[in-house]
Amino acid sequence: MTHSPAVTLLGYLAATLTTLSFFPQAIKILRTGDTTAISLRMYLLLSIGIACWGLYGFIIQDGPVMVANAITLVPALVVLQRKISHMLHNRHARRIQQG
Amino acid sequence: MTHSPAVTLLGYLAATLTTLSFFPQAIKILRTGDTTAISLRMYLLLSIGIACWGLYGFIIQDGPVMVANAITLVPALVVLQRKISHMLHNRHARRIQQG
Repeated sequence: MTHSPAVTLLGYLAATLTTLSFFPQAIKILRTGDTTAISLRMYLLLSIGIACWGLYGFIIQDGPVMVANAITLVPALVVLQRKISHMLHNRHARRIQQG
Repeated sequence: MTHSPAVTLLGYLAATLTTLSFFPQAIKILRTGDTTAISLRMYLLLSIGIACWGLYGFIIQDGPVMVANAITLVPALVVLQRKISHMLHNRHARRIQQG
C-alpha cells in the first residue's frame, strides 16, 4: 500500500524514535551500573517480543521490520543481561552474608 | 498481503509481547516509587515515538497499529511522568538543602 510522502515520513519518524529510544537506557545502565529500578519482566518480554518481530520481518521479507528490530534487540539485551547479572550477584552476596 | 496462519500468529505474538512488556515496568515504579535507574531520554523518545506510531496507524487506518500503540502509550507515559516528577522533586530538595 502506498501512502503520501508525509505519511510515510511519519512512519519512518515513529520507527526511528522508538528504535533509538532504547539506547539511552542501555548507555545509562552501562555507565552507572544501577539496574535497581529496572523491571526484569519488562526486558524479558520485550527481548522475546523483539526477537519475534525480527523473525516475523524475516519470514515476510519486510526489510524495515527486520532491521529496526535487529537494532532494538541490542540495547534490550544489554539491559536484560545487566539486570540478570546484578540479580545473581545480589543473591550470591546475600547468601554469603547469611553464612 | 496475506501470510500463512502461523506467520500471522507470530506477528500477533510479537505485538502482544512488546505491548505487554511495558506494563511490568510501570507497575514496578508505581509500587516502589524508585526511578533512579530509569532513563528520562528513553521514555521521552519512546513516548513521542509511540504517539507518532498511533497517529500513523490512525492516518493509514490500520487497527492493530493504532490499538497496540494506544495501549503502550499508557505505561510509557506513567514511567515518564514519575521520572519527571522525581527529578523535579529532587531538584527542589537540593535547592532547599543549599539554602
